[in-house]
Amino acid sequence: MKEIDLEKVFMFLEPGNVAMLSTAFGGKFNVMTFSWHMVLDFTGRFACVIGPWDYTYEALVKTKECVVSVPTVELIKKVVNIGSCSGNEIDKFKKFSLTPLPAREVKAPLIGECIANIECRVSDHIKRHDIFVLDAVAAWGNPNVKDKRKFHAVGNGTFYADGEHIDLKDMMLKKPDVGDPQF
Amino acid sequence: MKEIDLEKVFMFLEPGNVAMLSTAFGGKFNVMTFSWHMVLDFTGRFACVIGPWDYTYEALVKTKECVVSVPTVELIKKVVNIGSCSGNEIDKFKKFSLTPLPAREVKAPLIGECIANIECRVSDHIKRHDIFVLDAVAAWGNPNVKDKRKFHAVGNGTFYADGEHIDLKDMMLKKPDVGDPQF
Repeated sequence: MKEIDLEKVFMFLEPGNVAMLSTAFGGKFNVMTFSWHMVLDFTGRFACVIGPWDYTYEALVKTKECVVSVPTVELIKKVVNIGSCSGNEIDKFKKFSLTPLPAREVKAPLIGECIANIECRVSDHIKRHDIFVLDAVAAWGNPNVKDKRKFHAVGNGTFYADGEHIDLKDMMLKKPDVGDPQF
Repeated sequence: MKEIDLEKVFMFLEPGNVAMLSTAFGGKFNVMTFSWHMVLDFTGRFACVIGPWDYTYEALVKTKECVVSVPTVELIKKVVNIGSCSGNEIDKFKKFSLTPLPAREVKAPLIGECIANIECRVSDHIKRHDIFVLDAVAAWGNPNVKDKRKFHAVGNGTFYADGEHIDLKDMMLKKPDVGDPQF
Protein backbone atom coordinates (compact mmCIF):
# COMPACT_ATOMS: atom_id res chain seq x y z
CA MET A 1 0.00 0.00 0.00
CA LYS A 2 1.19 3.50 -0.83
CA GLU A 3 0.41 6.42 1.44
CA ILE A 4 -2.23 8.91 0.22
CA ASP A 5 -1.99 12.57 1.24
CA LEU A 6 -4.80 13.48 3.64
CA GLU A 7 -5.87 16.38 1.42
CA LYS A 8 -6.68 13.86 -1.32
CA VAL A 9 -8.78 11.58 0.87
CA PHE A 10 -12.03 13.38 0.02
CA MET A 11 -11.63 12.28 -3.62
CA PHE A 12 -12.23 8.66 -2.63
CA LEU A 13 -15.63 9.48 -1.07
CA GLU A 14 -16.90 12.61 -2.84
CA PRO A 15 -18.12 10.50 -5.81
CA GLY A 16 -20.64 8.95 -3.41
CA ASN A 17 -19.40 5.40 -3.95
CA VAL A 18 -20.25 2.46 -1.73
CA ALA A 19 -17.70 2.03 1.07
CA MET A 20 -16.94 -0.30 3.97
CA LEU A 21 -16.15 0.50 7.58
CA SER A 22 -14.04 -1.75 9.80
CA THR A 23 -13.60 -1.77 13.55
CA ALA A 24 -11.59 -3.66 16.14
CA PHE A 25 -13.52 -4.23 19.36
CA GLY A 26 -13.97 -6.99 21.91
CA GLY A 27 -11.01 -8.91 20.55
CA LYS A 28 -12.28 -9.15 17.00
CA PHE A 29 -12.47 -7.31 13.72
CA ASN A 30 -15.76 -6.48 12.04
CA VAL A 31 -16.76 -4.76 8.81
CA MET A 32 -19.96 -3.21 7.48
CA THR A 33 -21.07 -1.79 4.13
CA PHE A 34 -22.45 1.74 3.82
CA SER A 35 -23.21 4.40 1.28
CA TRP A 36 -24.73 7.11 3.46
CA HIS A 37 -21.68 9.35 3.77
CA MET A 38 -20.59 12.82 2.68
CA VAL A 39 -17.46 14.91 2.63
CA LEU A 40 -17.38 17.77 5.17
CA ASP A 41 -14.26 19.62 4.07
CA PHE A 42 -10.94 19.24 2.24
CA THR A 43 -8.94 17.99 5.23
CA GLY A 44 -10.13 14.40 5.17
CA ARG A 45 -13.16 15.00 7.39
CA PHE A 46 -16.44 13.38 6.47
CA ALA A 47 -19.76 12.27 7.96
CA CYS A 48 -21.68 9.02 7.83
CA VAL A 49 -24.90 7.56 9.22
CA ILE A 50 -24.49 4.63 11.60
CA GLY A 51 -27.16 3.89 14.18
CA PRO A 52 -27.72 1.60 17.16
CA TRP A 53 -29.27 -0.91 14.74
CA ASP A 54 -25.79 -1.48 13.27
CA TYR A 55 -23.57 -3.97 15.12
CA THR A 56 -20.67 -1.60 14.36
CA TYR A 57 -22.30 1.17 16.41
CA GLU A 58 -21.03 0.02 19.81
CA ALA A 59 -17.50 -0.52 18.50
CA LEU A 60 -17.46 2.97 17.00
CA VAL A 61 -18.82 4.63 20.14
CA LYS A 62 -16.40 2.82 22.45
CA THR A 63 -13.18 2.79 20.41
CA LYS A 64 -13.77 6.09 18.58
CA GLU A 65 -11.79 4.82 15.61
CA CYS A 66 -12.25 2.83 12.42
CA VAL A 67 -10.97 2.26 8.89
CA VAL A 68 -13.07 3.30 5.90
CA SER A 69 -12.23 1.19 2.84
CA VAL A 70 -13.10 1.80 -0.79
CA PRO A 71 -14.00 -1.32 -2.79
CA THR A 72 -14.20 -1.53 -6.57
CA VAL A 73 -16.48 -3.63 -8.77
CA GLU A 74 -14.14 -6.62 -8.37
CA LEU A 75 -15.59 -6.92 -4.86
CA ILE A 76 -19.21 -5.91 -5.44
CA LYS A 77 -20.83 -9.25 -4.56
CA LYS A 78 -18.79 -9.57 -1.38
CA VAL A 79 -19.58 -6.00 -0.43
CA VAL A 80 -23.31 -6.52 -0.89
CA ASN A 81 -23.22 -9.75 1.11
CA ILE A 82 -21.22 -8.03 3.86
CA GLY A 83 -24.04 -5.50 4.02
CA SER A 84 -26.64 -8.24 4.35
CA CYS A 85 -25.39 -10.02 7.48
CA SER A 86 -24.30 -9.07 10.99
CA GLY A 87 -20.91 -9.34 12.67
CA ASN A 88 -22.86 -10.31 15.76
CA GLU A 89 -23.27 -13.75 14.21
CA ILE A 90 -20.21 -14.30 12.05
CA ASP A 91 -16.58 -13.35 11.48
CA LYS A 92 -17.02 -11.43 8.22
CA PHE A 93 -13.29 -11.16 7.47
CA LYS A 94 -13.07 -14.95 7.53
CA LYS A 95 -16.39 -15.68 5.83
CA PHE A 96 -15.69 -13.32 2.92
CA SER A 97 -11.93 -14.01 2.70
CA LEU A 98 -10.93 -10.41 3.28
CA THR A 99 -7.31 -9.76 4.22
CA PRO A 100 -6.98 -7.62 7.36
CA LEU A 101 -3.77 -5.60 7.35
CA PRO A 102 -2.41 -3.58 10.26
CA ALA A 103 -3.16 0.14 10.21
CA ARG A 104 -0.66 2.71 11.44
CA GLU A 105 -2.75 4.96 13.67
CA VAL A 106 -5.75 2.85 14.68
CA LYS A 107 -6.44 -0.72 15.78
CA ALA A 108 -9.09 -1.36 13.12
CA PRO A 109 -7.71 -3.20 10.08
CA LEU A 110 -7.07 -2.07 6.53
CA ILE A 111 -8.65 -4.36 3.90
CA GLY A 112 -6.01 -5.68 1.52
CA GLU A 113 -8.41 -6.09 -1.41
CA CYS A 114 -9.67 -2.48 -1.42
CA ILE A 115 -8.29 0.28 -3.62
CA ALA A 116 -8.07 2.74 -0.73
CA ASN A 117 -8.12 2.51 3.06
CA ILE A 118 -8.65 5.54 5.28
CA GLU A 119 -7.72 5.34 8.97
CA CYS A 120 -10.17 7.50 10.94
CA ARG A 121 -10.89 8.86 14.38
CA VAL A 122 -14.42 9.75 15.48
CA SER A 123 -14.40 13.49 16.21
CA ASP A 124 -18.12 14.02 16.77
CA HIS A 125 -21.36 12.09 17.17
CA ILE A 126 -24.60 13.89 16.36
CA LYS A 127 -26.95 11.46 18.06
CA ARG A 128 -30.24 13.00 16.99
CA HIS A 129 -29.45 12.09 13.37
CA ASP A 130 -27.16 9.06 13.95
CA ILE A 131 -24.36 10.97 12.25
CA PHE A 132 -20.72 10.24 13.04
CA VAL A 133 -18.01 12.68 12.01
CA LEU A 134 -14.79 10.92 11.02
CA ASP A 135 -11.35 12.52 10.65
CA ALA A 136 -8.82 10.79 8.44
CA VAL A 137 -5.48 10.35 10.21
CA ALA A 138 -3.74 8.23 7.57
CA ALA A 139 -4.71 6.80 4.18
CA TRP A 140 -3.38 4.11 1.88
CA GLY A 141 -3.82 3.27 -1.80
CA ASN A 142 -3.52 -0.17 -3.35
CA PRO A 143 -1.89 0.02 -6.80
CA ASN A 144 -2.56 -3.69 -7.42
CA VAL A 145 -6.34 -3.37 -7.91
CA LYS A 146 -6.94 -3.98 -11.61
CA ASP A 147 -10.54 -2.88 -12.17
CA LYS A 148 -10.55 0.54 -10.54
CA ARG A 149 -14.23 1.30 -11.12
CA LYS A 150 -15.97 2.26 -7.90
CA PHE A 151 -19.70 1.65 -7.65
CA HIS A 152 -22.79 3.46 -6.42
CA ALA A 153 -25.96 2.14 -4.75
CA VAL A 154 -29.30 3.14 -6.19
CA GLY A 155 -30.93 1.79 -3.04
CA ASN A 156 -33.14 -0.90 -4.56
CA GLY A 157 -30.50 -3.63 -4.82
CA THR A 158 -29.08 -2.24 -8.05
CA PHE A 159 -25.83 -0.38 -8.57
CA TYR A 160 -23.99 1.70 -11.16
CA ALA A 161 -20.29 1.22 -11.77
CA ASP A 162 -18.25 4.25 -12.77
CA GLY A 163 -18.64 4.77 -16.51
CA GLU A 164 -17.46 7.56 -18.81
CA HIS A 165 -14.70 9.71 -17.29
CA ILE A 166 -15.38 13.37 -18.04
CA ASP A 167 -12.55 15.86 -17.60
CA LEU A 168 -13.74 19.42 -17.01
CA LYS A 169 -10.67 20.69 -15.16
CA ASP A 170 -10.37 23.58 -17.58
CA MET A 171 -13.76 24.86 -16.45
CA MET A 172 -12.74 24.91 -12.80
CA LEU A 173 -9.67 27.11 -12.92
CA LYS A 174 -10.79 29.06 -9.89
CA LYS A 175 -10.11 26.09 -7.65
CA PRO A 176 -6.59 24.98 -6.77
CA ASP A 177 -5.49 21.93 -8.76
CA VAL A 178 -4.92 19.18 -6.22
CA GLY A 179 -4.00 16.65 -8.88
CA ASP A 180 -5.44 13.23 -9.56
CA PRO A 181 -6.22 10.78 -6.79
CA GLN A 182 -3.28 8.60 -7.80
CA PHE A 183 -0.92 6.77 -5.53
CA MET B 1 -43.44 16.21 -14.42
CA LYS B 2 -44.77 13.10 -12.71
CA GLU B 3 -44.97 12.88 -8.94
CA ILE B 4 -42.42 10.63 -7.19
CA ASP B 5 -43.36 8.88 -3.94
CA LEU B 6 -41.44 10.34 -1.01
CA GLU B 7 -40.18 6.89 -0.02
CA LYS B 8 -38.36 6.70 -3.37
CA VAL B 9 -36.66 10.08 -3.07
CA PHE B 10 -33.54 8.64 -1.42
CA MET B 11 -32.81 6.69 -4.62
CA PHE B 12 -32.07 9.91 -6.46
CA LEU B 13 -29.34 10.91 -3.98
CA GLU B 14 -28.03 7.65 -2.47
CA PRO B 15 -25.81 7.07 -5.54
CA GLY B 16 -23.86 10.17 -4.48
CA ASN B 17 -24.48 12.01 -7.74
CA VAL B 18 -23.91 15.72 -8.27
CA ALA B 19 -27.04 17.75 -7.49
CA MET B 20 -28.26 21.33 -7.57
CA LEU B 21 -30.07 23.35 -4.92
CA SER B 22 -32.41 26.22 -5.72
CA THR B 23 -33.83 28.92 -3.49
CA ALA B 24 -36.23 31.83 -3.78
CA PHE B 25 -35.16 34.80 -1.65
CA GLY B 26 -35.08 38.57 -1.93
CA GLY B 27 -37.32 38.54 -4.97
CA LYS B 28 -35.12 36.24 -7.05
CA PHE B 29 -34.29 32.63 -7.73
CA ASN B 30 -30.80 31.24 -7.29
CA VAL B 31 -29.19 27.84 -7.81
CA MET B 32 -25.96 26.22 -6.64
CA THR B 33 -24.18 22.95 -7.44
CA PHE B 34 -23.21 20.50 -4.69
CA SER B 35 -22.12 16.94 -4.15
CA TRP B 36 -21.57 16.90 -0.39
CA HIS B 37 -24.84 15.26 0.60
CA MET B 38 -26.01 11.99 2.15
CA VAL B 39 -29.25 10.14 2.81
CA LEU B 40 -30.34 10.07 6.47
CA ASP B 41 -33.27 7.64 6.29
CA PHE B 42 -35.87 6.18 3.94
CA THR B 43 -38.44 8.96 4.41
CA GLY B 44 -36.86 11.47 2.05
CA ARG B 45 -34.63 13.06 4.72
CA PHE B 46 -31.06 13.87 3.83
CA ALA B 47 -28.16 16.09 4.85
CA CYS B 48 -25.89 18.44 2.93
CA VAL B 49 -23.02 20.81 3.60
CA ILE B 50 -23.69 24.47 2.87
CA GLY B 51 -21.75 27.17 4.67
CA PRO B 52 -21.73 30.94 5.03
CA TRP B 53 -19.30 31.08 2.09
CA ASP B 54 -22.17 29.96 -0.19
CA TYR B 55 -24.46 32.71 -1.43
CA THR B 56 -27.32 30.23 -0.97
CA TYR B 57 -26.65 30.04 2.78
CA GLU B 58 -28.63 33.15 3.75
CA ALA B 59 -31.59 32.14 1.58
CA LEU B 60 -31.66 28.69 3.16
CA VAL B 61 -31.40 30.01 6.73
CA LYS B 62 -34.10 32.63 6.21
CA THR B 63 -36.63 30.79 4.03
CA LYS B 64 -35.98 27.29 5.45
CA GLU B 65 -36.91 25.73 2.12
CA CYS B 66 -35.38 24.82 -1.24
CA VAL B 67 -35.60 22.49 -4.22
CA VAL B 68 -32.91 19.85 -4.77
CA SER B 69 -32.64 18.96 -8.46
CA VAL B 70 -30.91 16.00 -10.07
CA PRO B 71 -29.13 16.75 -13.35
CA THR B 72 -27.90 14.16 -15.84
CA VAL B 73 -24.88 14.24 -18.14
CA GLU B 74 -26.85 16.28 -20.69
CA LEU B 75 -26.38 19.22 -18.31
CA ILE B 76 -22.89 18.55 -16.97
CA LYS B 77 -21.17 21.62 -18.40
CA LYS B 78 -23.94 23.92 -17.20
CA VAL B 79 -23.87 22.29 -13.77
CA VAL B 80 -20.12 22.76 -13.44
CA ASN B 81 -20.35 26.37 -14.56
CA ILE B 82 -23.21 26.99 -12.11
CA GLY B 83 -20.85 25.74 -9.41
CA SER B 84 -18.13 28.12 -10.49
CA CYS B 85 -19.94 31.45 -10.15
CA SER B 86 -22.05 33.24 -7.54
CA GLY B 87 -25.70 34.25 -7.59
CA ASN B 88 -24.55 37.39 -5.82
CA GLU B 89 -23.33 38.63 -9.18
CA ILE B 90 -25.60 37.06 -11.77
CA ASP B 91 -29.03 35.56 -12.42
CA LYS B 92 -27.97 31.96 -12.95
CA PHE B 93 -31.36 30.78 -14.23
CA LYS B 94 -31.13 33.37 -17.02
CA LYS B 95 -27.41 33.01 -17.74
CA PHE B 96 -27.60 29.22 -18.03
CA SER B 97 -31.05 29.07 -19.69
CA LEU B 98 -32.60 26.93 -16.97
CA THR B 99 -36.38 26.75 -16.89
CA PRO B 100 -37.80 27.55 -13.45
CA LEU B 101 -41.11 25.78 -12.86
CA PRO B 102 -43.44 26.40 -9.92
CA ALA B 103 -43.16 23.94 -7.04
CA ARG B 104 -46.19 22.81 -5.06
CA GLU B 105 -45.06 23.15 -1.45
CA VAL B 106 -42.21 25.68 -1.54
CA LYS B 107 -41.42 28.96 -3.26
CA ALA B 108 -38.09 27.77 -4.69
CA PRO B 109 -38.36 26.65 -8.32
CA LEU B 110 -38.16 23.23 -9.90
CA ILE B 111 -35.68 23.04 -12.80
CA GLY B 112 -37.39 21.87 -15.97
CA GLU B 113 -34.26 20.30 -17.47
CA CYS B 114 -33.50 18.01 -14.50
CA ILE B 115 -34.56 14.39 -14.26
CA ALA B 116 -35.84 14.80 -10.71
CA ASN B 117 -36.80 17.72 -8.47
CA ILE B 118 -37.24 17.38 -4.71
CA GLU B 119 -39.10 20.06 -2.79
CA CYS B 120 -37.55 20.34 0.68
CA ARG B 121 -37.95 22.02 4.03
CA VAL B 122 -34.98 22.64 6.32
CA SER B 123 -35.64 20.65 9.50
CA ASP B 124 -32.29 21.13 11.25
CA HIS B 125 -29.08 23.12 10.96
CA ILE B 126 -25.97 21.72 12.63
CA LYS B 127 -23.90 24.87 12.57
CA ARG B 128 -20.65 23.43 13.91
CA HIS B 129 -20.33 21.33 10.75
CA ASP B 130 -22.30 23.52 8.30
CA ILE B 131 -24.76 20.66 7.86
CA PHE B 132 -28.36 21.30 6.84
CA VAL B 133 -30.97 18.56 7.24
CA LEU B 134 -33.58 18.64 4.46
CA ASP B 135 -36.94 16.89 4.48
CA ALA B 136 -38.56 16.14 1.14
CA VAL B 137 -42.17 17.33 1.03
CA ALA B 138 -42.88 16.63 -2.65
CA ALA B 139 -40.86 15.24 -5.56
CA TRP B 140 -41.19 15.23 -9.33
CA GLY B 141 -39.68 13.17 -12.15
CA ASN B 142 -39.13 14.30 -15.71
CA PRO B 143 -39.78 11.47 -18.18
CA ASN B 144 -38.52 13.59 -21.09
CA VAL B 145 -34.83 13.49 -20.15
CA LYS B 146 -33.18 11.27 -22.76
CA ASP B 147 -29.72 10.55 -21.34
CA LYS B 148 -30.58 9.44 -17.82
CA ARG B 149 -26.98 8.93 -16.63
CA LYS B 150 -26.31 10.84 -13.43
CA PHE B 151 -22.74 11.89 -12.72
CA HIS B 152 -20.33 11.94 -9.78
CA ALA B 153 -17.61 14.42 -8.86
CA VAL B 154 -14.13 13.10 -8.13
CA GLY B 155 -13.27 16.50 -6.69
CA ASN B 156 -10.42 17.47 -9.01
CA GLY B 157 -12.53 18.80 -11.87
CA THR B 158 -13.22 15.35 -13.28
CA PHE B 159 -16.39 13.32 -13.13
CA TYR B 160 -17.71 9.82 -13.74
CA ALA B 161 -21.03 9.26 -15.47
CA ASP B 162 -23.06 6.23 -14.46
CA GLY B 163 -21.77 3.20 -16.34
CA GLU B 164 -22.58 -0.49 -16.07
CA HIS B 165 -25.89 -1.17 -14.29
CA ILE B 166 -25.48 -4.10 -11.91
CA ASP B 167 -28.60 -5.82 -10.59
CA LEU B 168 -28.05 -7.65 -7.30
CA LYS B 169 -31.64 -7.51 -6.04
CA ASP B 170 -31.62 -11.28 -5.54
CA MET B 171 -28.84 -10.90 -2.97
CA MET B 172 -30.82 -8.40 -0.92
CA LEU B 173 -33.96 -10.35 -0.21
CA LYS B 174 -33.94 -9.29 3.42
CA LYS B 175 -34.83 -5.75 2.46
CA PRO B 176 -38.30 -4.78 1.27
CA ASP B 177 -38.46 -4.31 -2.50
CA VAL B 178 -39.35 -0.68 -3.05
CA GLY B 179 -39.21 -1.02 -6.81
CA ASP B 180 -37.25 0.97 -9.35
CA PRO B 181 -36.97 4.73 -9.18
CA GLN B 182 -39.24 5.11 -12.19
CA PHE B 183 -41.90 7.73 -12.72
